[in-house]
Amino acid sequence: MQYRFTEGAGVDPAEKARMIDAGTLQAFTAKVFEGLGMPAGDAATEAEVLVWANLRGIDSHGVQRVAAYSRAVDAGGMNPRPRIRVERETAATVLIEADYAFGPVVTVQAMERVIAKARTAGIGWGLIRNTSHQGAMAYYTQMAARAGLAGLAVVCSPPNMAPPGAKQAGTHNSPIAVSVPGLRRPPISLDMATSVAAGGKLDVARDKGVAIPEEWALDAEGRPTTDPGQSAFLRPAAGYKGYGLALIFECLSSLMVGNPLLSTTISGEGAPRPGTQNSFVAAIDIAAFTDVEAFKRDVDRLADAMNGLDTVEGAPPILVPGQPEEQVLAERTANGIPLPPGTVAKLRAAAERFGLDLPAALA
Amino acid sequence: MQYRFTEGAGVDPAEKARMIDAGTLQAFTAKVFEGLGMPAGDAATEAEVLVWANLRGIDSHGVQRVAAYSRAVDAGGMNPRPRIRVERETAATVLIEADYAFGPVVTVQAMERVIAKARTAGIGWGLIRNTSHQGAMAYYTQMAARAGLAGLAVVCSPPNMAPPGAKQAGTHNSPIAVSVPGLRRPPISLDMATSVAAGGKLDVARDKGVAIPEEWALDAEGRPTTDPGQSAFLRPAAGYKGYGLALIFECLSSLMVGNPLLSTTISGEGAPRPGTQNSFVAAIDIAAFTDVEAFKRDVDRLADAMNGLDTVEGAPPILVPGQPEEQVLAERTANGIPLPPGTVAKLRAAAERFGLDLPAALA
Repeated sequence: MQYRFTEGAGVDPAEKARMIDAGTLQAFTAKVFEGLGMPAGDAATEAEVLVWANLRGIDSHGVQRVAAYSRAVDAGGMNPRPRIRVERETAATVLIEADYAFGPVVTVQAMERVIAKARTAGIGWGLIRNTSHQGAMAYYTQMAARAGLAGLAVVCSPPNMAPPGAKQAGTHNSPIAVSVPGLRRPPISLDMATSVAAGGKLDVARDKGVAIPEEWALDAEGRPTTDPGQSAFLRPAAGYKGYGLALIFECLSSLMVGNPLLSTTISGEGAPRPGTQNSFVAAIDIAAFTDVEAFKRDVDRLADAMNGLDTVEGAPPILVPGQPEEQVLAERTANGIPLPPGTVAKLRAAAERFGLDLPAALA
Repeated sequence: MQYRFTEGAGVDPAEKARMIDAGTLQAFTAKVFEGLGMPAGDAATEAEVLVWANLRGIDSHGVQRVAAYSRAVDAGGMNPRPRIRVERETAATVLIEADYAFGPVVTVQAMERVIAKARTAGIGWGLIRNTSHQGAMAYYTQMAARAGLAGLAVVCSPPNMAPPGAKQAGTHNSPIAVSVPGLRRPPISLDMATSVAAGGKLDVARDKGVAIPEEWALDAEGRPTTDPGQSAFLRPAAGYKGYGLALIFECLSSLMVGNPLLSTTISGEGAPRPGTQNSFVAAIDIAAFTDVEAFKRDVDRLADAMNGLDTVEGAPPILVPGQPEEQVLAERTANGIPLPPGTVAKLRAAAERFGLDLPAALA
């Protein structure tokens, strides 16, 4: 198993994680964001999207982000009280200026709008300009799936990934997420970066001081490296294919909203504010094309067919995208979310800064 | 350079290719399709899409297909006189039943419809049920780019690719194509299969009797093989990522039109007619979001930025998707299209069958 859909579930037992239930963690995290100046409703949304990721084992996109988000607010890169506004609109499309909002705050709004448009126009397609980190993109595409539609979401950010042959970052390892609803099964839900490995996996390796596979990253001279401390650029998944997808995502997001992030950063002319993201989200109304119940049943059958494929000796059953995360969700809903010491320290620092009580499970 | 956007330009000089100009080749190929029973207009469309691919070095999707298409018509798998009909329609979407039409005949119509819808609704999204081989998908997405819009196209077909760990095909190596218009430069135009290597590359290796990289294919027992004669299943690009994209494309095309191709083929229940494809095509009206001229200028700047990236010692300049094909286009427009003996033989057989004069350049 060379690649996984996400960074994978489970936490190194050596990390001596503290276990906390999702509700308590979410309520505390929301208070932190209120401390950062966000209205209560927005703070709740932000906390929900982070804990949603933790519940599914996507810990790099979970509550450990509070530290970086706090620094970004202090530096003026993330705006806790943005003036989000619709700039253009058609029957099926919408362009939203996010004013450097926290990603989840604007992206939830955008997804709600495209779902509503899809119900009348068959499809809704929304562009978001000048957002900030959006968390786990599958959160938004699964909003559409829960509403009985197909959901799609893509992000672009400044460059961090070197095209094959380059010794310089050219594109971002922009992720794409797509979810479709099942009937008795959870959605099939893909959420993948266009790099071999997500950036968060390098952070983990760096923190632990362990080597990385040489497919993951290049050093500053463009040479493959197994030392996460020397890694300067991510490498694209499948070489030219990951690079090509990432480049196209910049065109369909950043260039479509008149806010180029790659060429400006590379040239230094008109470079964006650090952490800026552009994005598009879409919802497709299944009912515009076929019977929704039949579609959901066919999603189940497709997942069943994959799970039932013959495997090579010793290989586990073939899963569908989203299935590993659903397995972690069941386990963490029952047993709580394990937070490693580093994450607990970040939450403790936030509690101290804003005069909050750290949940007893973490104290 | 482990991967390329396409199977690559250029022809082995040992193949002693015949050179023929595009216009002559296209006129002859159209007559072959008329011989197969297609109306003259449809035959011209089909020939144009095939020669378009040859002109860009995508010879696996060029005129050599006449032999397979002729067999498919004889076997009832491709319909030269289909009853193509719009089954459902909204302001932004359309569902077309293709009645096993030749792919280009229905896909050109579908792309024209979604372009028209995009001009009023901001986006047009079209589903096609029961088409057959569609040729090079970038032909359709570049139709949108030429009209000043972004174009998107995806196909699904019965399974030929094994998910990681499987010893059985689970998905098709479904391609995705996206094109966006430039101002002084040609479009950035991605057209990639979700497998490491396109099926046509294995055909070429088999014909030549040369080994293939072990990343390309598996044998019937699910073991990597370097013998193209032993290859039974394609391997997905970037492992789980290529598999995940391919699975999602089945959901957004085949399941969306109520015509599952993967689960039915795997189970044997309701298996589709051989060669059946479902597809979706979309056009996004740039003007619904931003200034079209500025967008095109930004596409040029992005391509310039990629071409100007620092490269590792000895590496050629970084190209953008579509650029290698444009280089072949310029060369073949000037010097003609080289057709290897195998392709010439296929055209000769077609000429004999339909009482046509083989072009002098091929005789």
